[in-house]
Amino acid sequence: MKINGAHYRSVWPIGEDAFGIIDQTRLPHEFVTLTLHSAEDAADAIKSMKTRGAPLIGAVGAYGLALSVREDASDGAINAAVEMLAQTRPTAINLKWALWRMRGALLNQPHGKRVHLAWAEAGRIADEDVAMSEAIGFNGLKLIEKIAEAKKGQTVNILTHCNAGWLATVDYGTALAPVYMAHDAGIKLHVWVDETRPRNQGASLTAFELGSHGVPHTILVDNAGGHFMQAGQVDLVIVGTDRVTANGDVANKIGTYLKALAARDNGIPFYVALPSSTIDWTLESGRDIPIEERSQDEVLKMAGRLPDGSVTMVEIAAPGSPAANPGFDVTPARLVTGFITERGTCAATPEGLRGLFPEEK
Amino acid sequence: MKINGAHYRSVWPIGEDAFGIIDQTRLPHEFVTLTLHSAEDAADAIKSMKTRGAPLIGAVGAYGLALSVREDASDGAINAAVEMLAQTRPTAINLKWALWRMRGALLNQPHGKRVHLAWAEAGRIADEDVAMSEAIGFNGLKLIEKIAEAKKGQTVNILTHCNAGWLATVDYGTALAPVYMAHDAGIKLHVWVDETRPRNQGASLTAFELGSHGVPHTILVDNAGGHFMQAGQVDLVIVGTDRVTANGDVANKIGTYLKALAARDNGIPFYVALPSSTIDWTLESGRDIPIEERSQDEVLKMAGRLPDGSVTMVEIAAPGSPAANPGFDVTPARLVTGFITERGTCAATPEGLRGLFPEEK
Repeated sequence: MKINGAHYRSVWPIGEDAFGIIDQTRLPHEFVTLTLHSAEDAADAIKSMKTRGAPLIGAVGAYGLALSVREDASDGAINAAVEMLAQTRPTAINLKWALWRMRGALLNQPHGKRVHLAWAEAGRIADEDVAMSEAIGFNGLKLIEKIAEAKKGQTVNILTHCNAGWLATVDYGTALAPVYMAHDAGIKLHVWVDETRPRNQGASLTAFELGSHGVPHTILVDNAGGHFMQAGQVDLVIVGTDRVTANGDVANKIGTYLKALAARDNGIPFYVALPSSTIDWTLESGRDIPIEERSQDEVLKMAGRLPDGSVTMVEIAAPGSPAANPGFDVTPARLVTGFITERGTCAATPEGLRGLFPEEK
Repeated sequence: MKINGAHYRSVWPIGEDAFGIIDQTRLPHEFVTLTLHSAEDAADAIKSMKTRGAPLIGAVGAYGLALSVREDASDGAINAAVEMLAQTRPTAINLKWALWRMRGALLNQPHGKRVHLAWAEAGRIADEDVAMSEAIGFNGLKLIEKIAEAKKGQTVNILTHCNAGWLATVDYGTALAPVYMAHDAGIKLHVWVDETRPRNQGASLTAFELGSHGVPHTILVDNAGGHFMQAGQVDLVIVGTDRVTANGDVANKIGTYLKALAARDNGIPFYVALPSSTIDWTLESGRDIPIEERSQDEVLKMAGRLPDGSVTMVEIAAPGSPAANPGFDVTPARLVTGFITERGTCAATPEGLRGLFPEEK
């Protein structure tokens, strides 16, 4: 996607011994890119959320692993690097999926070829993610077109939570890919953007993306979505996900469950957009997904711009009060209208998922 | 309640020609009191939310009206002052209830007595609010005692949204009155405090109150309550309200509806605590309640403390993105387990309400 007229992906190779990312902790206040030179750099960037978004951290993990192979291409070193990178964030499955795919592509190959093979495989993972996002966008576009037809040209109002746009993937996005395609196709639409406390990925990243692309949108506090649904001002909810289990349960940014409940209570379709790399076929249900517990500082402090444009951190809560900060919640499959994947849409059921992906046993 | 050992109400008379309030926009960063000298001062303090909370703004409105009578005790002036003060905030009914009660106590009385009558009536409204809060606390305590018995002494976990503590009333609070009574009675309890964006009354006021009183509590972003309910870590939800309609619908701080949905989905009792002055017998249902739309700056900016202790305002969202900011939502009566009032608890139904208040036709 474009920023100030220049095309960016959210991760890109630099020669064959480094790669670049956008420092997403500086957005929307500053646009800063970083060059990462090692697997450790990649791990730090993922842990600190300089780079984030389930599909994107898969690609970043893959590039990080490829850099580790330059230092030591042995089986032991590859396994250790996979382990180290996999532990950076526990909830999103795409990271593990990408690392296991890299390992599978490298072990049993001649040591002398591994550096080149690893770099090529990381590049394929990134390119395939872009292709999957485009396909998700196309499949989701059909849903939006139907609503636009039913509304006879009136504005289609879509609510989204957190950031599942191009900044969360390698390009285009998951939940936002259909939005961009519909907007570019001339469908009148407007996006309600949940600010998504505590890290405000909605108000900072999604609003930044939509604003840069000229898509009409309005920021809401996370509390307000239910009210606008009750008022008939939401036609469709689309969110991304960090892990979908075999029964169709959905782990996503904390607060997603509340919006799914409100959508159900108001008869509004609630869709989850994902590449198949987000499906964890090994887990029966969402109860088994590890939920990341993050620092209480994310709740108690907030970064923002001062009038002079500089960025500072302020404390916002009562001094001495503790906070809890689970990063994700699980939306039960029964609240999900359907999945939008690169192969099409399906019901949030084991049969729905197996129907689209019959090769998974 | 006490702050640093000194007893405070949230509004108090100063002689017979002024009254004091705590500037709640400065909490939790600074504790500052203000002296108000006129109805206009009172209106400004309510509009800017220096003083807030449905029961409290009723008492503040009453004192403001009493001051206006010192300047002009004519029927016309009283009616104009009632009108001016009633328009400061549209959703909470207690303000109008208090103003209409003041007007009723003054019109048809000799002009020469009105100054004194008005001051006395405002004082009675404040004192009665304290008595109602105490009674609410006592009635809610019984609910908490039952849960504590069922849990055999394990900690009772209560979730609350926004601030319905002593800062929202004249003293004790509505939703928090039972919490204080249970804590003082030696029941082991812990409060999950929704931060309550956009104005963070939970993280700033409720956490400040609970911390000052020594009640164990943890701040959560508004997104997280559903997750803790799913995890079995919430036994009871108690919130306050700005207006209850005759059918039992509940207007309260934006986001309350989402917590009520999650409580219902997880089989957790969801209670609303209120003095009877919060019941609007003239409205059939919550659809008729005017919902205040507040400034988008409350969403796009945040006040906080810098490391040197000074307080500043920072911009937190993508530059140029607009925000919407409804102050309240309506929780349908079907999601409310019951009301806790000064007369006891009742079902959130027309019959339940009429049963407790048979004098209302």
